[in-house]
Amino acid sequence: MNPHAECPAETTTLTVSLGSRSYEIEIGTGNLSRAGKVLAAFKPVSLAYVLTDTNVQAHGYADKVASSITQTGMRIQTAVIPAGEESKSLQQSGRLWNEMCSCAFPADRQTVLAAVGGGVAGDLGGFLAANYMRGIRFFQIPTTLLAQVDSSVGGKVAVNLPGAKNMIGAFHQPVGVLIDTETLQTLPEKEYLSGLGEVVKYAVSLDAGLYGFLENNTEKIRGRDNAVLRHIIAECCRIKARIVSEDERETAGKRILLNYGHTFAHAFEVMSRYTLPHGLAVAAGLICAAKTARKAGLVDDNFVRQQTALHQALNLPAEIPAGFDRSEMFRLMRLDKKTESGVLRLVLPTRLGECRVVEGIEPAAFPDA
Amino acid sequence: MNPHAECPAETTTLTVSLGSRSYEIEIGTGNLSRAGKVLAAFKPVSLAYVLTDTNVQAHGYADKVASSITQTGMRIQTAVIPAGEESKSLQQSGRLWNEMCSCAFPADRQTVLAAVGGGVAGDLGGFLAANYMRGIRFFQIPTTLLAQVDSSVGGKVAVNLPGAKNMIGAFHQPVGVLIDTETLQTLPEKEYLSGLGEVVKYAVSLDAGLYGFLENNTEKIRGRDNAVLRHIIAECCRIKARIVSEDERETAGKRILLNYGHTFAHAFEVMSRYTLPHGLAVAAGLICAAKTARKAGLVDDNFVRQQTALHQALNLPAEIPAGFDRSEMFRLMRLDKKTESGVLRLVLPTRLGECRVVEGIEPAAFPDA
Repeated sequence: MNPHAECPAETTTLTVSLGSRSYEIEIGTGNLSRAGKVLAAFKPVSLAYVLTDTNVQAHGYADKVASSITQTGMRIQTAVIPAGEESKSLQQSGRLWNEMCSCAFPADRQTVLAAVGGGVAGDLGGFLAANYMRGIRFFQIPTTLLAQVDSSVGGKVAVNLPGAKNMIGAFHQPVGVLIDTETLQTLPEKEYLSGLGEVVKYAVSLDAGLYGFLENNTEKIRGRDNAVLRHIIAECCRIKARIVSEDERETAGKRILLNYGHTFAHAFEVMSRYTLPHGLAVAAGLICAAKTARKAGLVDDNFVRQQTALHQALNLPAEIPAGFDRSEMFRLMRLDKKTESGVLRLVLPTRLGECRVVEGIEPAAFPDA
Repeated sequence: MNPHAECPAETTTLTVSLGSRSYEIEIGTGNLSRAGKVLAAFKPVSLAYVLTDTNVQAHGYADKVASSITQTGMRIQTAVIPAGEESKSLQQSGRLWNEMCSCAFPADRQTVLAAVGGGVAGDLGGFLAANYMRGIRFFQIPTTLLAQVDSSVGGKVAVNLPGAKNMIGAFHQPVGVLIDTETLQTLPEKEYLSGLGEVVKYAVSLDAGLYGFLENNTEKIRGRDNAVLRHIIAECCRIKARIVSEDERETAGKRILLNYGHTFAHAFEVMSRYTLPHGLAVAAGLICAAKTARKAGLVDDNFVRQQTALHQALNLPAEIPAGFDRSEMFRLMRLDKKTESGVLRLVLPTRLGECRVVEGIEPAAFPDA
């Protein structure tokens, strides 16, 4: 990102370092209208190819980005996908790739693909960019809290196969991420809480300071206060950026720490047939993981009480979900990608802000329903 | 590749170095039956997923590879695609990815995908491996001369869009390449000559020593002598490995030198609606490029005469193709990926074994038809 482009006050800029490469994450309020300036700094740009979904378009966010791009004189093409997980498919990818190379101004090696939306637009857009002409530049403008604190940072992009989420994809780092907390004001409550689930995950497992901040600001968080959100998002991105820098391709055993609560969460998602939003499943997973850690003697009762209280104050799931069946959970959890040779590997907390990988947990170690 | 696995006499092993990674190319005669041993050395391997096409299967080559894998006790799955360029599609990719994750022994992160076949199996197999679970290991067993000297080395993998060859793909280096000259004995003459077109390209533009070897061995080359083929393939792979090592992702201006004759060739391929095999188009392109270089004063008449004589001795196209239309050629050539801001960039010879990029060549500089 061009450091000389004007930044509104109270903007935080973080750098994700990846060996010889790096990119910047800019977090602010009212940032969407800066998209054109930021993109124009990546010259040469033959074309800005903007991918968005019907929801984001309905709120006018894609238009705001588009008009700021047009103002710079840059050429632009916009593609709109139906909102929803079904758009993360090979069929949709094929349709868009054909469009990219046959539209009035075909995308070429100097095109930047910018995804404006939640995890679906980001994951699909990144997958499109990773494989178009063997890789073109990709820019993220995440508009949901979940995408802002998690999926837009780290370079994991993918589409789904029928029955297999994120099975086809790549590691394709963005050239930049632009976050505008204003977009969170229109987010449905369920999706907002889903993002908060991931925020609490970072705090409990990796940053006790952030945890304290959350405890002290529950009301402002519920009220979506822009200043508080800017701080929270910046802290989450900082944590994720640090871990991704140390383990870009999930080979060094660091990225796994981002998975606190996720092995339980994936099982809850499958059991709900993916009607439970990801971050709410994570929130429930955090409670299960905390209670499992308590049973294993890794943390004390107070740890579980404290986490439960925070969930309650933020309107997040604070109980083990009804219908929790130990052996069915175990079966589903062993399907997790972290499982090696049939041995379940869980990320469990050891104290506030710290966690580690624990292997070989058996169903009997799970908490009671 | 395991250096301790037994090598038959007269096997050449080359190393392709890519920063912190490297892989080996093994060139010999009767090598297919060593595939199992070589693959087993990449432990842990949960599954060898063998991709081949109907032609290669008909000659029994895939079976030879499969039985050598089975002998090691490794688990194996085989997928067969219809022979022909049509298989390099997103549809075929989707079908195979679904099969990979839903077959009796689903492919996982410890699977090695081995492509046994020509450029189609290699390009498609590499694309499948590059994106399955964000990248699994890929092994090349090329069975055509074109794939052995060119497409199997260098990590370029791709599928076609309707009307746009190799538009969707990645750079995904193999973990190893195993070449058996025995497979060339059953290759149709047209395909064999197509491979020779690329061989001559390497010699003229990058290696005068190889050029001399070709001139002195035209009869044995036409007779597909195994020893001569081993030497030629090893030399071509050595040249390509060196250039790929210096410019893995085509960003350092080195890989472009592998494109001598190719800008003309792509235009010939389009004009023939891809009925002209790639290497024969390249051979014709080499003659056009040599004559263009002559007109530009980069080489003398003798250079053109010498190259023409070699083409004749090898039964390769030695004339400018009939129907050569300067302005239509120019139009098609400007669609080349090397074109920047409308300026044509050609790789032209400066003397035997040397070439350079020449910019801004106009139709008037093309040779007469």
